[in-house]
Amino acid sequence: MKQIVIIGGGFAGINVAKELARNKDFTITLVDRNNYNFFPPLLYQVATSFLEPSNISYPFRKLIRRFKNVTYRMGEFHEVIPAEKKVILSTGTITYDYLVFATGAETNYFGMENVKQNALPMKTVNDALLLRNHFLQVLEQATVTADVAERTKLLTFVVAGGGPTGVEVSGMLAEMRRTILPKDYPEISGHGFEGHIYLVDGGGKLLKPMSEKSQQDTLDELTRMGVEVLLNHRVKDFTNDVVTFTNDKAIPTKTLVWAAGVSASVLPGIPATSYGASRRLITNAFHQVKDLENIYAIGDTAILSGDDKFPDGHPQVAQVAIQQGKNLAKNFEAWGVGKPPHAFSYFDKGTLAIIGRNKAVADFPLSRLHMKGFFAWLIWIFIHLASLINYRNRMRTFYNWAGAYLTRDQSLRMIIRPGKKE
Amino acid sequence: MKQIVIIGGGFAGINVAKELARNKDFTITLVDRNNYNFFPPLLYQVATSFLEPSNISYPFRKLIRRFKNVTYRMGEFHEVIPAEKKVILSTGTITYDYLVFATGAETNYFGMENVKQNALPMKTVNDALLLRNHFLQVLEQATVTADVAERTKLLTFVVAGGGPTGVEVSGMLAEMRRTILPKDYPEISGHGFEGHIYLVDGGGKLLKPMSEKSQQDTLDELTRMGVEVLLNHRVKDFTNDVVTFTNDKAIPTKTLVWAAGVSASVLPGIPATSYGASRRLITNAFHQVKDLENIYAIGDTAILSGDDKFPDGHPQVAQVAIQQGKNLAKNFEAWGVGKPPHAFSYFDKGTLAIIGRNKAVADFPLSRLHMKGFFAWLIWIFIHLASLINYRNRMRTFYNWAGAYLTRDQSLRMIIRPGKKE
Repeated sequence: MKQIVIIGGGFAGINVAKELARNKDFTITLVDRNNYNFFPPLLYQVATSFLEPSNISYPFRKLIRRFKNVTYRMGEFHEVIPAEKKVILSTGTITYDYLVFATGAETNYFGMENVKQNALPMKTVNDALLLRNHFLQVLEQATVTADVAERTKLLTFVVAGGGPTGVEVSGMLAEMRRTILPKDYPEISGHGFEGHIYLVDGGGKLLKPMSEKSQQDTLDELTRMGVEVLLNHRVKDFTNDVVTFTNDKAIPTKTLVWAAGVSASVLPGIPATSYGASRRLITNAFHQVKDLENIYAIGDTAILSGDDKFPDGHPQVAQVAIQQGKNLAKNFEAWGVGKPPHAFSYFDKGTLAIIGRNKAVADFPLSRLHMKGFFAWLIWIFIHLASLINYRNRMRTFYNWAGAYLTRDQSLRMIIRPGKKE
Repeated sequence: MKQIVIIGGGFAGINVAKELARNKDFTITLVDRNNYNFFPPLLYQVATSFLEPSNISYPFRKLIRRFKNVTYRMGEFHEVIPAEKKVILSTGTITYDYLVFATGAETNYFGMENVKQNALPMKTVNDALLLRNHFLQVLEQATVTADVAERTKLLTFVVAGGGPTGVEVSGMLAEMRRTILPKDYPEISGHGFEGHIYLVDGGGKLLKPMSEKSQQDTLDELTRMGVEVLLNHRVKDFTNDVVTFTNDKAIPTKTLVWAAGVSASVLPGIPATSYGASRRLITNAFHQVKDLENIYAIGDTAILSGDDKFPDGHPQVAQVAIQQGKNLAKNFEAWGVGKPPHAFSYFDKGTLAIIGRNKAVADFPLSRLHMKGFFAWLIWIFIHLASLINYRNRMRTFYNWAGAYLTRDQSLRMIIRPGKKE
């Protein structure tokens, strides 16, 4: 019986475990620093108080309960010792026959220390809750501030990064400004909303991997909603309540949401020659990490070389992670019985991004179809509900969405900070 | 038009605001440090992962949206200057015609510094979330600990305080040990649960204000569920993972839940002569604070003198706070039109406490009725659902309870700590 250790329980890692869950030739240890799996595409709805953390999260122990050969281990990855087939975690040392890195990516501040200190990232459930608390806090401050310049700073939100997260957060903020602010914050809307919602990107396009049609639709729709989109604006610094750009433009604000880039993590014990661009681990088409044996990498943390269609690696999206996880699991089974492994090949099911309350854009490469508006939004809703990890989450989320849609509102705008004893 | 400032948006404060919400003779400012009202009787269900914080909480701004003469102000109370009719908050200074203290009570550690440092209180939503994270964390640690003594400490839970909170928390922990642990933590239940669940109280009775019959039923039921009830055990210290008692008994544990006492807060600007037992503000039957003018106190923070039936003051429970809030509001209206005010008189609707998954005890003083078991539990469910602040919360909570009841389980066991940036 082979012992597989998977570091990271996101889309990639969880799919390896699920595929092998009923195969008695393997025992699997799933390691994650958090005790729950979560659904990153909906983090922005937690950050804007439209969903609960529990709508998009699920405890690992409950998830793997029915898989007799899978155990969960809470812990941070500290180091791998390939020669001894050992992994050192914050909670102890475990041995492996096969080790899988599915550690995802982390926020990349491109070396800008002030941005790292002062901006708010959007990669984890904690990030989303901190952002929710921050949004509510600046609104409260704006209600009691007599100084117009200060109030304008408090009500100005700069979202950096024109990818799906940036588009979704800025769109959601515009929705909230229109529907919730007049009702809940009459002190602010009374003298007119003095702030701005900016979406900024260093490049010339929103939603870069999508079709030009989708990009244009997104830009038009966000602009119509009152989001000020600044393309070709690269953030240089964020300090003393001012975001500055390389073109010397400056925006006074208390809020910079940072969704402008990710990189993989440094993994102690992995030789320098195994890393590719953005610290992603270089793998072959079978997910084996370069220059190492019995060590694999999948999902955002991996960069697969040899796929002619993706010379710079696959996009760091959920579908790639899911498909790589499943392919690696099948290869473990193939190797186990002496069969040849399958080379990974990505099947692009399409790309979706949501803009407003009932607006989305969608590209489906197979049918060369582009959609926008309400129907694209319905598809988005359907796909995301179907992707949630279990029935309970789907029911809860559907209930919350139905409520939010019908009332244009939610009742989750609470600043809760269980960081310390009171 | 009279300006009423209410400090604290719990049961007492919110009821003053609601009663006066449609009276144009008053403008009301509701001050609270949190931006949400919450329902303390269900905190223990948040602490044990059976309910979400949003099931029992509701944002003030959404709550008062329909009350045109009520505004919400986020802030901590700093000081009152009675001579100038001014209140200084952390977020600015406001003036009042009438000032209402509805500041509730805080956890009382009776001067034991180590207990204050190391025990976990149960008074706020943050407390409940910290407790939830703590419970899950010690269980995770127990799964990877090889040392039996250490594991026993991790799996031993001491709950101090034999009131409703202590009874409910210890009962819930016993339920979780029975239904959830074997499924989610096979590593722990595999070698038998090595810990203990203790409920300790310095006095000789559980649920002191209830009937002897209810007290005995509660003791029997908890004991049957495996809770070790230690009466006449007064905590002396909690340090180095050991709870010690004044009778020199010692229990090694990582967890002391502190539900053993409350006291009101010191309120700067209030003269010493206005305070009674446990720092509660002494009021007359019209809720006017002793030795002050235009200042009122209601709910847990007040001690009303002159009610012969309650020579030591009314119990610090929700019903008293609600009824005092309503009575004070009616008195403001009476004073406004020159009518005599109503002296407060407490109507005891009955007392309920829940023990296990479908067990409760209930005393109804009017009918001299005592109930226990499933029917008492149904009444408990019904009363608590009806008391939740609005329809959305009721629906959510009902949904969660139905799920928890049918499956004996929930999927909220996630350690989420948005205390700092990651």
